[in-house]
Amino acid sequence: MTDSLFTDTSDRNERHLARMLRKKAVIDERIANSPNECGLLLVLTGNGKGKSSSAFGMLARSMGHGMQCGVVQFIKGRNSTGEELFFRRFPEQVRFHVMGEGFTWETQDRQRDIAAAEAAWAVSRQLLSDPSIGLVVLDELNIALKHGYLDLDQVLSDLQARPPMQHVVVTGRGAKPEMIELADTVTEMGMIKHAFQAGIKAQKGVEL
Amino acid sequence: MTDSLFTDTSDRNERHLARMLRKKAVIDERIANSPNECGLLLVLTGNGKGKSSSAFGMLARSMGHGMQCGVVQFIKGRNSTGEELFFRRFPEQVRFHVMGEGFTWETQDRQRDIAAAEAAWAVSRQLLSDPSIGLVVLDELNIALKHGYLDLDQVLSDLQARPPMQHVVVTGRGAKPEMIELADTVTEMGMIKHAFQAGIKAQKGVEL
Repeated sequence: MTDSLFTDTSDRNERHLARMLRKKAVIDERIANSPNECGLLLVLTGNGKGKSSSAFGMLARSMGHGMQCGVVQFIKGRNSTGEELFFRRFPEQVRFHVMGEGFTWETQDRQRDIAAAEAAWAVSRQLLSDPSIGLVVLDELNIALKHGYLDLDQVLSDLQARPPMQHVVVTGRGAKPEMIELADTVTEMGMIKHAFQAGIKAQKGVEL
Repeated sequence: MTDSLFTDTSDRNERHLARMLRKKAVIDERIANSPNECGLLLVLTGNGKGKSSSAFGMLARSMGHGMQCGVVQFIKGRNSTGEELFFRRFPEQVRFHVMGEGFTWETQDRQRDIAAAEAAWAVSRQLLSDPSIGLVVLDELNIALKHGYLDLDQVLSDLQARPPMQHVVVTGRGAKPEMIELADTVTEMGMIKHAFQAGIKAQKGVEL
C-alpha cells in the first residue's frame, strides 16, 4: 500500500517533469522569437471589475523600474480616490491629472462633459508628445469616446504619433473597434459576479 | 442650415439630459439599497493580461486610504518585478513576500513547487489572521491550486475564517469553481489580443 502510493506519487512527479520540460522548450523558443521592444498600446475594456486598477498596477510596476509616468483621469467623481491619494505622493515620478467632472449621469450636462474631455485630451497630448514619459494611463478614455465627447480620428492619430518607446494604457468599457484595432494588447474584463449584485456597496481600496 | 444644426445639437443635449436623469435615479437607488460594508473576496482569473496588475492597483488604492496591506506571490521568476521593486519601498505599510520559485515549467520539480506553495500558504495564513491588515493580495494562488500544490478545502476554510473587514484579492488563471463560488466579485479577463502574438516580448512596466 505504501509502496503503491509511493509509486503513484513518483509516477506523477515524473509525468509532471516530462510535461514541464516540453512546456519549457515551447516557451523558451517563443521568447527567443520575440526580441522586439517597443512602446505598447494596451486597452482594458469590458463590464467586469479591474480595468482601472490594472492600469494603476502597471503604473506601480513602471515606477518600480524608475520610469517617469503620466495619468489622465477622464471621468471621475469629485471625491479623491485611493489611487489619486496614493500616486500624488510621488510628484517627482508621476504627473497625475484628474480632469473629469464626475460620471456623465452625475453632471447631466453634455456640453460641460465635452469641454472637460477636450481639456483632458489637451493634457494627454502633452504627455503623448514627451519622450521622457515611459507610461501614460488614459483612464476611462473609452467612455469619453463612446459618448462622442472627443474626435476618435484625432485621438487615434495622436496615439500613433507618440514616442516609439512609450507605453499607453487606455481603460473603460465599450472600447471602439478602431481603438481595439490599433492596440497591441486588449483585455476584455468579463463580470462573472460582482459584490454589488449582493447588495454590497463600493468600498475603499477595492473600487474607490 | 446653421439653425438646423443648432436644433440638432440642442435636441441631442436634451435627449442626453433626459437619459442621464433616468440613469442617475436608477443608480442612486441602487446605492441607497447597498449599505453594507464588509471585507470582500475578489478573484481575478482568465487568460487575458491584467490579473496581477489589477491586484496591485487595488493595493495602491488601499495604501492611498492608509490601510495596512500584505502580499504573497506564489509563483514568480527569480528576477525582481516592477511591483516588487516598487512596493518594497513602503515596508511600514506593505508586507511583501515573494515565495514562489519561478513558474512551474522553470523549476520542473513538483516536490519543490509543493514545498514552496506550502511555505507561501503558511505566510498567507498569518496575514489572514491579522485584523490590522485591510487588504491581502494572494498573487497566482489559483495556479498553485490548479496544480494541486495546496489543499483546496484548507485554503477555502482559511479564507472564510479571516477578519470580517479584510479584503482579499486572489489572482491566476484557471480559478477553481469552489473559489469562484466563495468569492464576492469575480472577473474573467479574456484575451482579445496580446502583443506576444505579434512577436513582442514581455516588457518592463507592462508585464514585468
